[in-house]
Amino acid sequence: MPEATPPSERTRVVREPNRGVYDRETIYKILDEGFVCHVGFSVDGQPYVIPTLFARVGHALYFHGSAASRMLRNLGEGLPVCVTVTLTDGFVLARSVFNHSMNYRSVVALGKATPVDAPQEKREALHGFTEKILRGRWNEARQPSDQELKATSILRLPLSEVSAKVRTGPPIDDEADYALPVWAGVIPVHVAFDSPIRDERCDRAIALPPYLQNFQR
Amino acid sequence: MPEATPPSERTRVVREPNRGVYDRETIYKILDEGFVCHVGFSVDGQPYVIPTLFARVGHALYFHGSAASRMLRNLGEGLPVCVTVTLTDGFVLARSVFNHSMNYRSVVALGKATPVDAPQEKREALHGFTEKILRGRWNEARQPSDQELKATSILRLPLSEVSAKVRTGPPIDDEADYALPVWAGVIPVHVAFDSPIRDERCDRAIALPPYLQNFQR
Repeated sequence: MPEATPPSERTRVVREPNRGVYDRETIYKILDEGFVCHVGFSVDGQPYVIPTLFARVGHALYFHGSAASRMLRNLGEGLPVCVTVTLTDGFVLARSVFNHSMNYRSVVALGKATPVDAPQEKREALHGFTEKILRGRWNEARQPSDQELKATSILRLPLSEVSAKVRTGPPIDDEADYALPVWAGVIPVHVAFDSPIRDERCDRAIALPPYLQNFQR
Repeated sequence: MPEATPPSERTRVVREPNRGVYDRETIYKILDEGFVCHVGFSVDGQPYVIPTLFARVGHALYFHGSAASRMLRNLGEGLPVCVTVTLTDGFVLARSVFNHSMNYRSVVALGKATPVDAPQEKREALHGFTEKILRGRWNEARQPSDQELKATSILRLPLSEVSAKVRTGPPIDDEADYALPVWAGVIPVHVAFDSPIRDERCDRAIALPPYLQNFQR
């Protein structure tokens, strides 16, 4: 893994700089825990932000081109994008409304996204999308045909200009407010999964696969 | 509530148009269930996407200006933004990798964001941020002083150009794939909350408020 690159002028965390994190280990861990990213791009001066699935493969981020229907006409040698991944970890309840906050971990990656053409690279990206959520699923489901790979639009963003922002811990109140008789603390937040719901057309004789039993990520 | 406005060229759902939703009741329900939005804006041709807290108040969306540190210099008569709110409802496991999907509800709002100056409007926005998550908290915590209101940057986006995209239900496979012996269905996903963690500096004599007991949203 390459060393942390110093933040660029564009990725340096300006507001609350103490929350800025620039080491790749932390950044990649956040990316690997998320499964939806928000892709930002501009068309005719109007920004768009589209949620889509993604995966990190090595030092690149791949995301689904379904976000790209509006942007593909602009691609050329690469479309400037911002890909943001946000994990919310808690509501932070301070004694004052002003100091209420969230605990969260977010990553912002800037750069130029380019379409993936090589079928093998597309396949690896799809493998990443599937396996990051459901380890073992790839080998069980029917894998993409050449035609399906062709019909799948995948974009690649090199992770060269990237930073994270992290808040953890209890509320920070103004010193005078600690005397107020107001409950203060954190409500932890996480993403939870319920029991799998079998498709009505899925034969009951087909057992629930091991990776779906007590499914947690 | 005003009628659904027909989608503009910019908000019409182009890809998978059957997932496009344009009635305000559905759109507002999605907005009110989310608590983090992703704000997109451009600076010198580079898009940025920043997560931040938000609330809908009437037909406007208010979001925290902490996202604005980079954009405030560009504001003038309003900065073109896209505010996107995404709720993830499930992983959709098809028999083929190609037809794997997510169940989700997302809203995209386009327009020009302007800073809120009036203290009373700022107060209403902050009230919205707090009460949408923690009903009852506003009256219990110390409310913002004039100085704090001044230090709080809030932006307003009128909800005039807005659309939603929704996927629900089971996987849709190619007809031939239904014969494959592959488990297929949906893993429901939701946001969950754990037991509140009291701040170490919060006196044990202060009872957990009613709105935090069995906290669910």
